Amino acid sequence: MISKKMVGYVQGSSAIRAMFEEGKKMSALYGAENVYDFSLGNPNLAPPEEVKQAILDVLHEESPTFVHGYMNNSGYEDIRQKVAENINQKHGTHFETQNILMTVGAAGGLNVILKTLLDPGDEVIVFAPYFGEYRSYVSNFDGVLVEVSPNTVDFQPNLEEFEKKVTAKTKAVIVNSPNNPTGVVYTEKNITALSNILRSKQEEFGTSIYLITDEPYRELVYDGVSVPYVTKYYKNAVIGYSYSKSLSLPGERIGYLVIPSEVDDFQDVVAAANVANRILGYVNAPSLMQRAVGRCLDAEVNIGVYDKNRKALYNGLTEAGYDCIRPDGAFYLFVKSPIENDVEFCNRAKKYHLLIVPGTSFACPGYVRIAYCVAYETITGALPKFKELMEEFK
Amino acid sequence: MISKKMVGYVQGSSAIRAMFEEGKKMSALYGAENVYDFSLGNPNLAPPEEVKQAILDVLHEESPTFVHGYMNNSGYEDIRQKVAENINQKHGTHFETQNILMTVGAAGGLNVILKTLLDPGDEVIVFAPYFGEYRSYVSNFDGVLVEVSPNTVDFQPNLEEFEKKVTAKTKAVIVNSPNNPTGVVYTEKNITALSNILRSKQEEFGTSIYLITDEPYRELVYDGVSVPYVTKYYKNAVIGYSYSKSLSLPGERIGYLVIPSEVDDFQDVVAAANVANRILGYVNAPSLMQRAVGRCLDAEVNIGVYDKNRKALYNGLTEAGYDCIRPDGAFYLFVKSPIENDVEFCNRAKKYHLLIVPGTSFACPGYVRIAYCVAYETITGALPKFKELMEEFK
Repeated sequence: MISKKMVGYVQGSSAIRAMFEEGKKMSALYGAENVYDFSLGNPNLAPPEEVKQAILDVLHEESPTFVHGYMNNSGYEDIRQKVAENINQKHGTHFETQNILMTVGAAGGLNVILKTLLDPGDEVIVFAPYFGEYRSYVSNFDGVLVEVSPNTVDFQPNLEEFEKKVTAKTKAVIVNSPNNPTGVVYTEKNITALSNILRSKQEEFGTSIYLITDEPYRELVYDGVSVPYVTKYYKNAVIGYSYSKSLSLPGERIGYLVIPSEVDDFQDVVAAANVANRILGYVNAPSLMQRAVGRCLDAEVNIGVYDKNRKALYNGLTEAGYDCIRPDGAFYLFVKSPIENDVEFCNRAKKYHLLIVPGTSFACPGYVRIAYCVAYETITGALPKFKELMEEFK
Repeated sequence: MISKKMVGYVQGSSAIRAMFEEGKKMSALYGAENVYDFSLGNPNLAPPEEVKQAILDVLHEESPTFVHGYMNNSGYEDIRQKVAENINQKHGTHFETQNILMTVGAAGGLNVILKTLLDPGDEVIVFAPYFGEYRSYVSNFDGVLVEVSPNTVDFQPNLEEFEKKVTAKTKAVIVNSPNNPTGVVYTEKNITALSNILRSKQEEFGTSIYLITDEPYRELVYDGVSVPYVTKYYKNAVIGYSYSKSLSLPGERIGYLVIPSEVDDFQDVVAAANVANRILGYVNAPSLMQRAVGRCLDAEVNIGVYDKNRKALYNGLTEAGYDCIRPDGAFYLFVKSPIENDVEFCNRAKKYHLLIVPGTSFACPGYVRIAYCVAYETITGALPKFKELMEEFK
């Protein structure tokens, strides 16, 4: 009796989430300490102490009717202003209150901007490997997902193929950097080149093509790498941000969209995004969390912990004979499967109580994603198992 | 450049929200104490003290990684279990964890169940007057909204017309009781009759028709009136609940769906709803709020305050010559406009700094909605203005 579209979704339901549930079952069976669950991007670091303090301060200092009540669907004006100023300070931009729309996480933000922009049949380009949920988000509005093949040399975007795939029907491009699943940060050179292609294609087709970023991992970068702020490279850019990873608040569903005043049809886009936030059923981003993050915009989780994990895992796996890119950001390692069939490899890994996600879930077969937002002991405990696993294929 | 569908939405954007924004502007201009804003169902009562204590207890007693992290897309199992037990205790039902799906408010819940059920072209029946957002929610999934005309005698559902409008394409019926905008509670007799019609139509067409309730106002009833729990009257019923009004938390976006094990295709419906919650971009209901409401399921706002407002407003308006139904629940009064054109009447009311919403927004022209979730002083201050306004039409 359920919707035909949903039948397909349920059958092909997120392998990552399935793994998460399986991990919980295995933990119950074998003891959590004997299961090495690298399946989900669920930060193991607690939120910074400032977050708790901010929540307490809001509860003690602000009126509860105000804190838990309705506000403009785009969010509290003072919080949007603070977010804008914070971005300006960090990135030398010039955003104002009207450019910020508080959202139910980045997932909420992406759905809002896609609902705002897409007519049925409009094309949205993504670069493989990509977060599988983009397929659902685009399908929510009957858009057509157009994939650019992975560049398996360094997992930078494959711009030659991209240029060929931009058509008169291209309405948007989604860029996710630092990338899930590879951890790769797209270089300034590539963001510039990508922007040049888009400008030229807009002119060629007489269209507006919106570059949408999904950047919950912006703050999680290592070795001093910097992540280009795309609004500085391309006019029709919309930023999707989330505090899920930078403040370890994935369950709270709090993030924002930046819609610069320079985007084509700015007034329409902003008005429609405000309405979309409401009618998609979000209504507004959770209110207490809006007020809390507004008080700790400069708080950060200690990414030194992730960096230590990254190095230990990268070194351990390469020593064990695995082939992978050393990631600059996020908390994922994207590793070449020693056999062609990555799904099979992940199943074989389960024998060692290793839970990892097939690259097929990210439109990049032959690879697996290992999320290292876990306890250090999980990594040290897992490395000998990964080694044993590799031995099977030698 | 925005989506064609959104162009229409933006143009016809919520009159209620527009009024809310206008109210803020008028307050800035004339002083808040001189503006009588009855436009929005934004509770003026603070949440019960137990809510603040519950949030503090969660923050002090539970692990922050757990409290702010991901969980099953349907919500924390222990909270779902507690919610189920609480409903069972209040209503003599037999729900379990698997029957509860925590949602981003009732708006999130309705979108989840509609995405779960609707194929394009499927019909969803609503009873006028109804909350205008249902139109958008059904349209989100390309369903067709079928309106049953208002019964302006007592605003109970017009079941004769309803019976004629149920077709082989009817997939769902939305019932909102206590009702927004009328405050009317549908009687047990009518819920029984409605259920009988649905059963008979299911048999006639060989279909499943889901009865979906939207009941954020369940706890807001007066004079000992009781609100029938529809799962006890009809097998294919799904409850949409929100803590927005009962705990005065509308900004927090926290509610749940009840999907009874008896509904047709239960396993498919539950699995699809879980996926829908994820891919619609909600991912999960806000985590801290899930944990907090789990600790204060029996907390209640002091509805005596609303009741006092209700009586003062009802008595004052009827004395001034207005014609309205005495409402049993919610915090709305639905009043006959003294002129046929309710939009015009609301505009005339603005002259007296009275902000009220045309019935046209609820598919019931000729009436206006007055939300009395306001300070008592707003009512006593507004009544002379309402009287003056009425004089204009005598």
